[in-house]
Amino acid sequence: MYRTQTCGELRIADAGRETTLCGWVQHNRDMGGMTFIDLRDRYGITQLVFNMSENEALCRQAREAGREFVLQVKGTVAERSNKNPKISTGDVEVIVRELTVLNPSKNPPFTIEDESDGGEDLRMQYRYLDIRRNPVRQNIMFRHRLAQETRRYLDGQDFVEVETPVLIKSTPEGARDFVVPSRMNPGEFYALPQSPQTFKQLLMVAGLDKYYQVVKCFRDEDLRADRQPEFTQVDCELSFVDRDDVLQTFEGLVKHLFQAVKDTRLGDMPRLPYDEAMKLYGTDKPDTRFEMIIADLKDTVQGNGFRVFDEAGAVLAIVAPGCAEYTRKTLDELTDFVKKPQIGASGLVYLKCNADGTLKSSVDKFYDAGNLEKWKAATGAADGDLVLVLAGETVKTRKAMSALRLEMGRRCNLLDGDAFSALWVVDFPLFEKDEESGRLYAMHHPFTSPRQEDIPLLDSDPLSARANAYDMVINGVEVGGGSIRIHDRGLQQKMFDALGFTPEEAGRQFGFLMHAFEYGAPPHGGIAFGFDRLCSVFNHEESIRDFIAFPKNNAGRDVMIDAPSGISDDQLKELRLSLRGE
Amino acid sequence: MYRTQTCGELRIADAGRETTLCGWVQHNRDMGGMTFIDLRDRYGITQLVFNMSENEALCRQAREAGREFVLQVKGTVAERSNKNPKISTGDVEVIVRELTVLNPSKNPPFTIEDESDGGEDLRMQYRYLDIRRNPVRQNIMFRHRLAQETRRYLDGQDFVEVETPVLIKSTPEGARDFVVPSRMNPGEFYALPQSPQTFKQLLMVAGLDKYYQVVKCFRDEDLRADRQPEFTQVDCELSFVDRDDVLQTFEGLVKHLFQAVKDTRLGDMPRLPYDEAMKLYGTDKPDTRFEMIIADLKDTVQGNGFRVFDEAGAVLAIVAPGCAEYTRKTLDELTDFVKKPQIGASGLVYLKCNADGTLKSSVDKFYDAGNLEKWKAATGAADGDLVLVLAGETVKTRKAMSALRLEMGRRCNLLDGDAFSALWVVDFPLFEKDEESGRLYAMHHPFTSPRQEDIPLLDSDPLSARANAYDMVINGVEVGGGSIRIHDRGLQQKMFDALGFTPEEAGRQFGFLMHAFEYGAPPHGGIAFGFDRLCSVFNHEESIRDFIAFPKNNAGRDVMIDAPSGISDDQLKELRLSLRGE
Repeated sequence: MYRTQTCGELRIADAGRETTLCGWVQHNRDMGGMTFIDLRDRYGITQLVFNMSENEALCRQAREAGREFVLQVKGTVAERSNKNPKISTGDVEVIVRELTVLNPSKNPPFTIEDESDGGEDLRMQYRYLDIRRNPVRQNIMFRHRLAQETRRYLDGQDFVEVETPVLIKSTPEGARDFVVPSRMNPGEFYALPQSPQTFKQLLMVAGLDKYYQVVKCFRDEDLRADRQPEFTQVDCELSFVDRDDVLQTFEGLVKHLFQAVKDTRLGDMPRLPYDEAMKLYGTDKPDTRFEMIIADLKDTVQGNGFRVFDEAGAVLAIVAPGCAEYTRKTLDELTDFVKKPQIGASGLVYLKCNADGTLKSSVDKFYDAGNLEKWKAATGAADGDLVLVLAGETVKTRKAMSALRLEMGRRCNLLDGDAFSALWVVDFPLFEKDEESGRLYAMHHPFTSPRQEDIPLLDSDPLSARANAYDMVINGVEVGGGSIRIHDRGLQQKMFDALGFTPEEAGRQFGFLMHAFEYGAPPHGGIAFGFDRLCSVFNHEESIRDFIAFPKNNAGRDVMIDAPSGISDDQLKELRLSLRGE
Repeated sequence: MYRTQTCGELRIADAGRETTLCGWVQHNRDMGGMTFIDLRDRYGITQLVFNMSENEALCRQAREAGREFVLQVKGTVAERSNKNPKISTGDVEVIVRELTVLNPSKNPPFTIEDESDGGEDLRMQYRYLDIRRNPVRQNIMFRHRLAQETRRYLDGQDFVEVETPVLIKSTPEGARDFVVPSRMNPGEFYALPQSPQTFKQLLMVAGLDKYYQVVKCFRDEDLRADRQPEFTQVDCELSFVDRDDVLQTFEGLVKHLFQAVKDTRLGDMPRLPYDEAMKLYGTDKPDTRFEMIIADLKDTVQGNGFRVFDEAGAVLAIVAPGCAEYTRKTLDELTDFVKKPQIGASGLVYLKCNADGTLKSSVDKFYDAGNLEKWKAATGAADGDLVLVLAGETVKTRKAMSALRLEMGRRCNLLDGDAFSALWVVDFPLFEKDEESGRLYAMHHPFTSPRQEDIPLLDSDPLSARANAYDMVINGVEVGGGSIRIHDRGLQQKMFDALGFTPEEAGRQFGFLMHAFEYGAPPHGGIAFGFDRLCSVFNHEESIRDFIAFPKNNAGRDVMIDAPSGISDDQLKELRLSLRGE
């Protein structure tokens, strides 16, 4: 046994007790007559004391222990004269009698402190040292707790966790599949799952009734800050349920998680139809921590000879409270912001509702005071507020306005850093149209059920048909989504017809699932949560990478182990593969 | 809401209650005036009743509901006149008022009964129907419970579950790695982990102290009945521990699992050194549910002119109690058994210790009664027992004798089908020698620590050095294994020297782990359990496949989804790969 206590365990009541501790040297302070070492492990920090006058040899040995050396010490717990109230062990120290260096350490390439001096690249390369820092370790332990509580809730609701295969079948539409050559079946490949969608539906056909899995999924695509080639889903499916059953169950899950790991009571989640979300917030992932809903100014502003507005499909406005006094410079910044390529607006119109009741817009040439009063009324702006207006093609303008709304939320300090606001977005469109080919595509996947009352629209007006699909959105982040599936073969056929699938195409792409559905598929539906993202949203963090022990960078590389990498020609030969040139 | 109760829920106290149930038609019995349907879901079976005289149309509709149709019924719970004590709902039935066919079913290709008429191949192809059968579903739910309890125990001991990457680095020695071409890094490959060994050691360097993970691992190798290309490990690692700490922790885990899921109190696990295990049982995976230890007859039998014995490296015997009266035919069967290629003995010698005290051997030509009495004494055989003797090269003979011992255990009914006998096998050899090259290989892996007292042997007699490694064996099956790792750089260097690694080779194969070890690696060690195998051993089953929802066959194929399969040339092109001919 290497230790009798951990470095986070000793308290004032232990004074006088013999102890053996192990850990890493956090700080080593040579004060002349005394040497103090802060010894750190996962559980905390304990101060060690060495006294020149009592044991010179031991004290000199202690001075040699550099940062991150691994030590084992034996000694006596004593009350500290100057206590440290910031740490749980701050009332005591250990008077060391015996010191063993279990392992020395080279000087680490960055400081192992809450605020490190190491840049991101360096810390990723030495991730095993980065994890020694409190914030990173706490994220990893948070993830563990969140997974524990997820399982506890679902287990308690009679869900069965089932491991579905990782080596599955590559499908023709699986353009973003990672594939795995099979040595035993030359020329053939497995694919890694982008989600266990098919298998969880098969488990419903199998009568498992309630399934979940905390499961790795894979997607070989260009990466952004919040994407990883491997990511974790909380994947769930239930039989004999309608939409309300699913929403209630998983609203319950997320409320449980907030209660258990954040001690936060989350309110009931409103259900916002997709159309409403787009109208009010310009996005299907609204951040509802603040109001600032979008007003439709089109009818108010058109017909006054201002071509930008007159020719626009949409004229949208938000009110920034108390911002009427923004300077020219600030307004120029906002104009630059909306014109950024990723935002995509062509310009920004403003209306200052001054505190003295006067109005001043950037388009006074076209609109007189009477016109502008109508703007003010239509947006509900008060004296002192700033109205910001974007105009153009509807989809683009909504997207830009959604970004501007978030920007103004930040600038106006409306985004409470500690707040959580969750909602369901429901009634997504069933189809989207590819503008080039004119062909319809399933917005989720072809097994997503339409809303019952919209089934006739499949024939008459498919683009108006709504799906029985739902997303959970927290603080403007989509944390999960799912749908009720089609279990009726006639309806499935209608769906394939609308998507322009021939029976052959449908069979080739979805054959074995359709086959399984012939043997008594129950009504079923489910949801999948992005677990990495759930972790980051719970902690008000932007990046999921902070919650992954060994993440990959934007090029899909693990810089610590240097993967991916070349493999030997022998290995390629055995797989019956060769590399092509450019 | 589709249902108010499940099919396993209704009891006599519910009589008179309105209920709505959903499920599959297990049986449909038309008794003329009455029709009875057994409706099944995951939770149980409930009998539905339809009465011609009360509602002829409904009764006729019910008769049409074939096997595996999915029904929703509304009705009234009533007490049954002839109760079925075999099922928990057997006291009641539901008088149905309303019936909806939620989905019809084609006639399933095999019967959905505990004993199905479907062969293995057919059941694998229609796995989603096979899972509807009680035994298969119960296995999957057992696996879930075992994973739950594993996590509960380890969580309670402060272990942190950390997800390690699935897309890792292919290593030169990773001959059995599955590889994954990276689209974003053309010509480069990830590998799928055969185990998270490196990462868990890095997590110890990272100070995580106690790590576990229930994790998928992958090995691209020829398959046997108890191997799968993807399998699940319970992977664990601890810091600041010696061997006893590890053995106690995981003996505790397995005892907890037996208590929690089998309501069985498992005794303390003896620790058997590898050398002893080989001597007493001929294997490092002894089935200790029965004694029948191997006796060494070499000194007793040599020097009597019987060349088979005189030239043998080992002459080993077991005693089959009460088998002296075996017929010629049975003895011939046993001889055929030991001569099978996978057993590999060249013949079988026997000694019958007859009930009347006389002795009769198959080698009476060479051994007189006095000699044979010595055999009897040396083996401890009693009157009525049969002594079975194998001779030859030591390693081969032990292996054959181990197989014969199991065979005799079965024949003598010594293998209690309900019993569990667990032990630790410890002190494995550190190295094994490749006879062709004469080179030493690490029996576990090159980071396995030798026993402290055997370190000097690394220079003088490495093949005698014992590893600080351990396996847990239950009923003759290795369910887990691990070791204390080397954390001292000098010792690691000695180890690489003994293995004949140049510093370059060592660096190339183990570079980033060795690099990490320079920054304060703590003493650490761990274990990994084969989770699929643990499931099968707990249930006295031979095959792990029964405990995997969607297993692959011996050719590594998933016959249900038909994977692996070809991929398109476009996909290959995008990965910069082409297929080679033979």
